[in-house]
Amino acid sequence: MGDQTKQSELSIEEEVGGVVEKAKEVQEVAASFISKSTREEKELQQRARSLDESIRKLRSSISSLTFDSRIDPRKVEKLEYDLNRANCILADGDASSFLPGKIESQFLKRFLGPINVRAIRKDVQLKVKEEYNSYKDRTAYLFLLFPSILLILRYWMWDGCMPSFPVQLYQAWLLFLYTGLALRENILRVNGSDIRPWWIYHHYCAMVMALVSLTWEIKGQPDCAQKQRGVKLFLQWAMMQGVAMLLQNRYQRQRLYTRIALGKAKRMDVVWGETAGERGQLWLLCPILFILQGFEAYVGLLLLQTAFVGVVSEWQVVFCGFLLVLMAIGNFANTVQTLLVKSRFKAKMKRTKSKQQLD
Amino acid sequence: MGDQTKQSELSIEEEVGGVVEKAKEVQEVAASFISKSTREEKELQQRARSLDESIRKLRSSISSLTFDSRIDPRKVEKLEYDLNRANCILADGDASSFLPGKIESQFLKRFLGPINVRAIRKDVQLKVKEEYNSYKDRTAYLFLLFPSILLILRYWMWDGCMPSFPVQLYQAWLLFLYTGLALRENILRVNGSDIRPWWIYHHYCAMVMALVSLTWEIKGQPDCAQKQRGVKLFLQWAMMQGVAMLLQNRYQRQRLYTRIALGKAKRMDVVWGETAGERGQLWLLCPILFILQGFEAYVGLLLLQTAFVGVVSEWQVVFCGFLLVLMAIGNFANTVQTLLVKSRFKAKMKRTKSKQQLD
Repeated sequence: MGDQTKQSELSIEEEVGGVVEKAKEVQEVAASFISKSTREEKELQQRARSLDESIRKLRSSISSLTFDSRIDPRKVEKLEYDLNRANCILADGDASSFLPGKIESQFLKRFLGPINVRAIRKDVQLKVKEEYNSYKDRTAYLFLLFPSILLILRYWMWDGCMPSFPVQLYQAWLLFLYTGLALRENILRVNGSDIRPWWIYHHYCAMVMALVSLTWEIKGQPDCAQKQRGVKLFLQWAMMQGVAMLLQNRYQRQRLYTRIALGKAKRMDVVWGETAGERGQLWLLCPILFILQGFEAYVGLLLLQTAFVGVVSEWQVVFCGFLLVLMAIGNFANTVQTLLVKSRFKAKMKRTKSKQQLD
Repeated sequence: MGDQTKQSELSIEEEVGGVVEKAKEVQEVAASFISKSTREEKELQQRARSLDESIRKLRSSISSLTFDSRIDPRKVEKLEYDLNRANCILADGDASSFLPGKIESQFLKRFLGPINVRAIRKDVQLKVKEEYNSYKDRTAYLFLLFPSILLILRYWMWDGCMPSFPVQLYQAWLLFLYTGLALRENILRVNGSDIRPWWIYHHYCAMVMALVSLTWEIKGQPDCAQKQRGVKLFLQWAMMQGVAMLLQNRYQRQRLYTRIALGKAKRMDVVWGETAGERGQLWLLCPILFILQGFEAYVGLLLLQTAFVGVVSEWQVVFCGFLLVLMAIGNFANTVQTLLVKSRFKAKMKRTKSKQQLD
């Protein structure tokens, strides 16, 4: 027995010695890996940056060439095409991870501190993007569900006068949701997504509105039903938005996949909101979006009216009304802009095509 | 002139060609770098993980050895010492970045999605840590400033009855602040910091309380001064907390630097809250902390009392009172626990020392 103990003692001693050696080894390998990859990363960053700069310089010299009538425009077109190709390789490929981030997100810095949220690997970036899409899907259902429940209960149980607690719970959920969306969209932007800045500002506005609406007294003194008219309209608008979100999500994802397949889009393109797309579904989506925006402005104006007519005199009502109108205008302007960009792009494509046919 | 145009055209053509080539090259280098470093990272992860496992196994076999009276306890101590050394090399060095994160933060996932916030390089981790410390410093001043301004204005301008807007602004700031702190602390934890879970839960509670207090009617119907008694107490408590935070920050940072210098602490140790330290300042800090916790519980109980006596019957009052009491108890329990751990550690150190002297 003593011998066995001795032996197990010895083997443990050996193993401990081995573990210490291994730990030193792993530490060394890790340290050298980190320093080496840091160095290589910096080198790559430098190369990508200098290339980006020369592309920019060449672009301006080519555009100055186009004003020179003595040069064959076809040659200039060829040069432009080549330069665009180089730019696509740089901006859409693996090298793009080493270009300096276009955007320093102050919002992320305020909430998270100076942590790096940029992923180098494309598959990680894509995972983030896809999770964002499925998050939007899930929230769209809740967006439809919560206000409908509140409105149904208002009708069936509460006799037209909602208690404050469930409404405030809903508002708190909105605050949480919009904060999450704004954080995620900022992260996507840092990761190279082309999401339009307005949609992020839109979520900031929505955050502020959810916060303000939390401080808003919901049960009114003179006449509850009248006081809650704004809330009711807001809930109806939220339901409509839920439907629109579901449609948009489906439409955009389809379009994104088509565009990826066609090689037109970087896969980090996020198209939250009202960007335009293929004919068929667009004729369904666009009117819904415009109606939604009109309704948004209408709710905002109604709130402003109730405040100025004097039924409810709280500042929150004025503020929310103003924000809703602002958001409606911004949404409208951005949708129209996207449609214009799209139609211009289509017109250009047509022209190129007919030119090619003529040639 | 025609010749010159021709020449500049030619040189631009050449440059464009060069840029396309360079773009392909950078893309290739970037792709190979990413795939190579991903592979190496995975390898390192595997090695670190298997080493971690063998250390754990050996630890249990050594602890079974200690029960065997036939083995020299000094030898066991030596083995334990070696194993600890291996563990320190693995857990505190560069290799630690390749160990799987101890904590999957659900909180971060909810807000940010599946983005990786773990930094591989120690200097980046440290930067995050240091920024967190300076963030705490800045907020501590605001923590002192905001409630004092409110209380002073209440006395000088508002005749004992605060308007809701500034108070709600303060509460919104609290909500933002606690959300930021909770996010940052979760990030620090993912990066290997030893922050006690309670302090994060504490900030979740504070977030919920700030949210609930936003929905709380501040101007009272029967008697404003009576209704605002809770708010006044809360603001006084917040001021005290500001002072305590400033003291703690100074004290903990000093202690952290001492510990880093002594090599005792991983530099990612965050000691927000009431952990104990060197004698001199501890005798100042501990009573302040206990008084603060007592006051926290007192404010909570007062709120509960006002609710049950019937002056204010809103659910928010009951809820906030309950939360405050809960937070006070949790803070107290954690402070005491930390003090106990510390004194036990000191006693052990003493014993080892006297033993060494006897030997």
